[in-house]
Amino acid sequence: MHVLPELGFAQFSLVYNTLSLAIAAMFASFAFFVMARSQVTAKYRPALVMSALVVGIAGYHYFRIFESWSDAYVLAESGMYVATGEPFNDAYRYVDWLLTVPLLVAELVAVLALPKSTRGSIMTRLIIATVLMIGTGYPGEIATDITTRAIWGAVSTVPFVYILYVLFVELSRAAANESGEVKTLLNNTRLLLFATWGFYPIAYLFPQLGIDGAWATVGLQVGYSIADIAAKCGYGVMIYAIARAKMEAAGESVDAAPAMRHA
Amino acid sequence: MHVLPELGFAQFSLVYNTLSLAIAAMFASFAFFVMARSQVTAKYRPALVMSALVVGIAGYHYFRIFESWSDAYVLAESGMYVATGEPFNDAYRYVDWLLTVPLLVAELVAVLALPKSTRGSIMTRLIIATVLMIGTGYPGEIATDITTRAIWGAVSTVPFVYILYVLFVELSRAAANESGEVKTLLNNTRLLLFATWGFYPIAYLFPQLGIDGAWATVGLQVGYSIADIAAKCGYGVMIYAIARAKMEAAGESVDAAPAMRHA
Repeated sequence: MHVLPELGFAQFSLVYNTLSLAIAAMFASFAFFVMARSQVTAKYRPALVMSALVVGIAGYHYFRIFESWSDAYVLAESGMYVATGEPFNDAYRYVDWLLTVPLLVAELVAVLALPKSTRGSIMTRLIIATVLMIGTGYPGEIATDITTRAIWGAVSTVPFVYILYVLFVELSRAAANESGEVKTLLNNTRLLLFATWGFYPIAYLFPQLGIDGAWATVGLQVGYSIADIAAKCGYGVMIYAIARAKMEAAGESVDAAPAMRHA
Repeated sequence: MHVLPELGFAQFSLVYNTLSLAIAAMFASFAFFVMARSQVTAKYRPALVMSALVVGIAGYHYFRIFESWSDAYVLAESGMYVATGEPFNDAYRYVDWLLTVPLLVAELVAVLALPKSTRGSIMTRLIIATVLMIGTGYPGEIATDITTRAIWGAVSTVPFVYILYVLFVELSRAAANESGEVKTLLNNTRLLLFATWGFYPIAYLFPQLGIDGAWATVGLQVGYSIADIAAKCGYGVMIYAIARAKMEAAGESVDAAPAMRHA
């Protein structure tokens, strides 16, 4: 169990308000992805449904993390926030990732609307790899000694590298016939995923690097929250943009009988 | 951390009931914008979705502000409301604006359904400017000395003026071909935005002007709430009116097979 450092008013509030921001962002995104389904044709809707599930699940977990954070601290006479003894349950994040990360990689494959044979194989391998990545990262996260942490961290890196290989090599091959705009969007989406996921291993290394104390705790919580908002809400919006760009490239529309109206 | 003044029964209740009014107005507006999507053609729906997200996010924050206000005060033996020591977290407003203000400017651009090239450029610049405006206002808001507050207030005014320039000069040029009714509505919507946003810098100046105490706290909370209801619910309804006016000007309808019926 991690010992919570004493925090100043601004430090406690920054985490508190960032967690609340994440709740608002996740649930607003949920409403957005549910409504955005009517802006795309049927074959792109599974991707938007997955985006909605991801942010819905994350919204629930941020609500729990927010409550846990509020219960873990109390404002003391000194004007500082001190630990109440109630543990701050950061494991909600792992539970969240176990459900949302497979969905995140699946939605990227889904929006490309690849032929069924290619899609099935890529999706299955990606989902297994993400579950292995998060499952093996967890024992390291809760370990109290640095060595156990380092070993599980190294094990977890193997599926992570495999995911990157599938997304950047195999998926590029499968999307070779897409239009220029779709290719650019696909590339930006993968880069966003890579950049935001990059925060998690860095945060994982904090104890190894000896980074600790009040600002480390604050930086970790704020960093995780911003990375999650970008990797879930921002990423989902880019998936939606890919669907719309593919519709445009194919001359598809969601309006009833558009061909007749424009005739 | 702001010290909360002692409040009379009427003063405390006025804020309490106004915050509850805001919750009701925001969530009712959310339901309205979600349902109103079916009254417009596909190209105007993104604007209504954004209106729905804005009031949904604001409804969540008003719920939090209401809870925080209730927890911050207790009715004493004297019949007065006194601070419990639990801080009143007014920062929810900034978190709210960070998410809703970019959406508010984006929905105005979206409802005009401009050509993709013009729309993208205007929207990107407006969103960056709003984030800069709110991001630089915040350090001033939490500052304890008047000078720091004044400096950040001045910095924040620069993007604010730029936003006004884009909305009143660039957007007028882009909407030059609109019908008379649409132009009037567009103008009224911008004026509503300008008038309601005008309250925020005035409220920001309160400490500079030496306005403090019980009625200042009450005036600030009631003023913010009314400004928010006008700037989010009222503004969204006007965006809807613009969409309907544009549909009418173009002879569009959401009824099935309109061409045949009017034949």
